[in-house]
Amino acid sequence: MSTSSLNELINLFAKLPSLGPRSARRVVLYLLKKKNLIPQILESLSDVQSNIKLCENCGNIDVISPCGICTNVKRQADKICIIEDIADLWAIEKSNAFDGLYHVLGGVLSAIDGIGPEELNIPKLFSRLKDGNIKEIIIATNATIEGQITAQYIADQCDKSDFLVTRLAQGMPMGSELEILDYNTLSTAFKSRSKINTNP
Amino acid sequence: MSTSSLNELINLFAKLPSLGPRSARRVVLYLLKKKNLIPQILESLSDVQSNIKLCENCGNIDVISPCGICTNVKRQADKICIIEDIADLWAIEKSNAFDGLYHVLGGVLSAIDGIGPEELNIPKLFSRLKDGNIKEIIIATNATIEGQITAQYIADQCDKSDFLVTRLAQGMPMGSELEILDYNTLSTAFKSRSKINTNP
Repeated sequence: MSTSSLNELINLFAKLPSLGPRSARRVVLYLLKKKNLIPQILESLSDVQSNIKLCENCGNIDVISPCGICTNVKRQADKICIIEDIADLWAIEKSNAFDGLYHVLGGVLSAIDGIGPEELNIPKLFSRLKDGNIKEIIIATNATIEGQITAQYIADQCDKSDFLVTRLAQGMPMGSELEILDYNTLSTAFKSRSKINTNP
Repeated sequence: MSTSSLNELINLFAKLPSLGPRSARRVVLYLLKKKNLIPQILESLSDVQSNIKLCENCGNIDVISPCGICTNVKRQADKICIIEDIADLWAIEKSNAFDGLYHVLGGVLSAIDGIGPEELNIPKLFSRLKDGNIKEIIIATNATIEGQITAQYIADQCDKSDFLVTRLAQGMPMGSELEILDYNTLSTAFKSRSKINTNP
């Protein structure tokens, strides 16, 4: 292959998550076959590049800042759900499980990678918590070690605050089979077991 | 999400091979984080769009047509390796197993999908075979049912030709363990077993 522009595009695609060198090659070959996709992607990419903004309030992305969720008067502004990433926000929105506001941290605390509170969207979180009329914060970081450390750090900082600090329940995922659960989940599910109401 | 331009980009990426809706979302979020990647991809994509040509001779892609392989005088022009896809060409080139020319079919014959010889790069193949001083064609389609039907079709058409018609060996992949081989491969490997030379 003497085609350096092709190689360059393959290398760029290979940097994206979910893609490696081999699948990046497949993507580029597919693009060359379906030539009408290329101008569409070009247009859509430049569109996103010029229009998408980071919400100054919560760290979400949208065409406006503050974002559509922060400015939506129908949402409960006294509840803030704290999440690691925008993908988490999208997942929660799809589940319709929450009607408050969000705060996107943009990652987790990590001593190994040198990521402290200042590297994340945490200072802005505390200024939001001071300003507002907050009743509850729901810490919804991932159930990983780093996620739990980050959750604990935020909870510690909110000690003696007026608002409630909660986190998502941990246990068996819906539809899961006991046999294939990992031991950590199983022992968490045992520890957090709840009473079944027998008198309806 | 009121961000239709984002959704559009996600939908476009979700159409690419190896990507689904979820990984397309991850890719787009990653692009928004690493904003300097977007202009690079924009440039590289338009570059590829305007510069890459299909080789009129063999169906390879390159910045010139006929391609770098077809015009390379160091390659053996009397051997043609027939493959389904450009990705196969790249794989063979990486292995350094072949120093002749290629012919990319652009797919396989498929009665179900209504793909006959005319839909593939097959007519051009036969005109190459008539024109040239060919000594051997190596049919290197995939070892799938469609690949083998396509190989047989081409071989049948070359009946009573002056050149040799060969195909790649089928058997155990190098480094494979007998226990985990599928039955088809195992039985092919048995049928095609070869004598070990005991008198060096």
